[in-house]
Amino acid sequence: MTKKIGMIPGTGKQSQGIALRLAQAGYKVMIGSRSSEKAKTIVEELNTKLSVSSFYGDENKEVVKQCDILFFVVPPEYICSTLEDLGSDIKTDAIIVDVIVPLTFEAGLAYCSEDMCLDQFDYPSVSEYIQATVPEGVSVVGGFKTISAAKLNRLNHPLDVDVFLTSNSQEAKNDIKGIISKIEGLRVLDAGPLAFSRTTEQMTAFVININKLNKLKHASFRVISAAPKKQK
Amino acid sequence: MTKKIGMIPGTGKQSQGIALRLAQAGYKVMIGSRSSEKAKTIVEELNTKLSVSSFYGDENKEVVKQCDILFFVVPPEYICSTLEDLGSDIKTDAIIVDVIVPLTFEAGLAYCSEDMCLDQFDYPSVSEYIQATVPEGVSVVGGFKTISAAKLNRLNHPLDVDVFLTSNSQEAKNDIKGIISKIEGLRVLDAGPLAFSRTTEQMTAFVININKLNKLKHASFRVISAAPKKQK
Repeated sequence: MTKKIGMIPGTGKQSQGIALRLAQAGYKVMIGSRSSEKAKTIVEELNTKLSVSSFYGDENKEVVKQCDILFFVVPPEYICSTLEDLGSDIKTDAIIVDVIVPLTFEAGLAYCSEDMCLDQFDYPSVSEYIQATVPEGVSVVGGFKTISAAKLNRLNHPLDVDVFLTSNSQEAKNDIKGIISKIEGLRVLDAGPLAFSRTTEQMTAFVININKLNKLKHASFRVISAAPKKQK
Repeated sequence: MTKKIGMIPGTGKQSQGIALRLAQAGYKVMIGSRSSEKAKTIVEELNTKLSVSSFYGDENKEVVKQCDILFFVVPPEYICSTLEDLGSDIKTDAIIVDVIVPLTFEAGLAYCSEDMCLDQFDYPSVSEYIQATVPEGVSVVGGFKTISAAKLNRLNHPLDVDVFLTSNSQEAKNDIKGIISKIEGLRVLDAGPLAFSRTTEQMTAFVININKLNKLKHASFRVISAAPKKQK
């Protein structure tokens, strides 16, 4: 049985970038929004953009009820209220891919500290908060946090970037790896348990600043390593 | 006037790796140790290794008194006592390059959280603690934290890696950039103020785990970015 993939919501650029890359990789993607009309407008735009019929949509509540894989891309300030509204409708064996990074900007630089999360919901990372809040059985996987919306939306460029997956469920991590590794140019790396979303959330602010301070464009992380021995 | 570069201490593999790379780039490097005899033994080993006479050495106190650039590579548990012993001897316009990462290991994974620093010295990163503790005028630059000793010591391989510099002094950051950018294969990136050593310290644990969980060798970070427009 094919797992249904949905975006909560599909309104932002980060969310649409991931949705478009998934559609390019051959997946159908359900687009959520607060209103079903808005969802349908976006669906039409995205289908037109790729000349496909891979996208369909409805209000967020329906997406949550129907999908097995939910990309959570809500603005940080709505994390708590979104989970209050939708949490009980999440399928008990669903996987949530948490893409959220709580950023603030000060003197032109991005910051993401554990403090911001702790102020908001007593957990040092968004991923850990979501995992602690969703119904039992639901697994959270942190991912895509360090990849910018701009980069995801440059559809004529292969991504050429690493995605770092964090989760306390190895099975959920493997499931998500199986799905997203079909996206061209995306290497999937296991980054350990969910607590390491603290690091990926901070790395997002970090790479935004590196981009700016060093006059780069679309900066992202790649983990480089020594060539395996047999290739020498 | 050429600035004198010293290693506090020059005994560990991380420190020696940086010292060897600096010597390959044409610098003289003063090696510190608790005893001047030990320092001299290491000096001989390092000079022999590269067939140079770039290394000289003495006890840590002498290195601190003589050098303008001090690489701090002490084991995390000795940060406080080292600064108590040597702090007042640091030149008032010296730059300290802080390479230290306080790591713990649990169930085979590396961890570095702000909590560890906060327990030890009430600052969320080693770099910030050192900056707050050294005499006025001394600037701290965080750097090399994410680059492994093993990688630094593979001298027949170009580094092919990014170093992230953090500092509250742009001048100090520029000085260090000027020096270390002569190391082959090392790209120097400005990573913002010293508070971002919190991120680089966490990234060290993160990349150690990525190396292990994904069966990589000598994993390190590279920031990749879009090609500049003129290259299209």
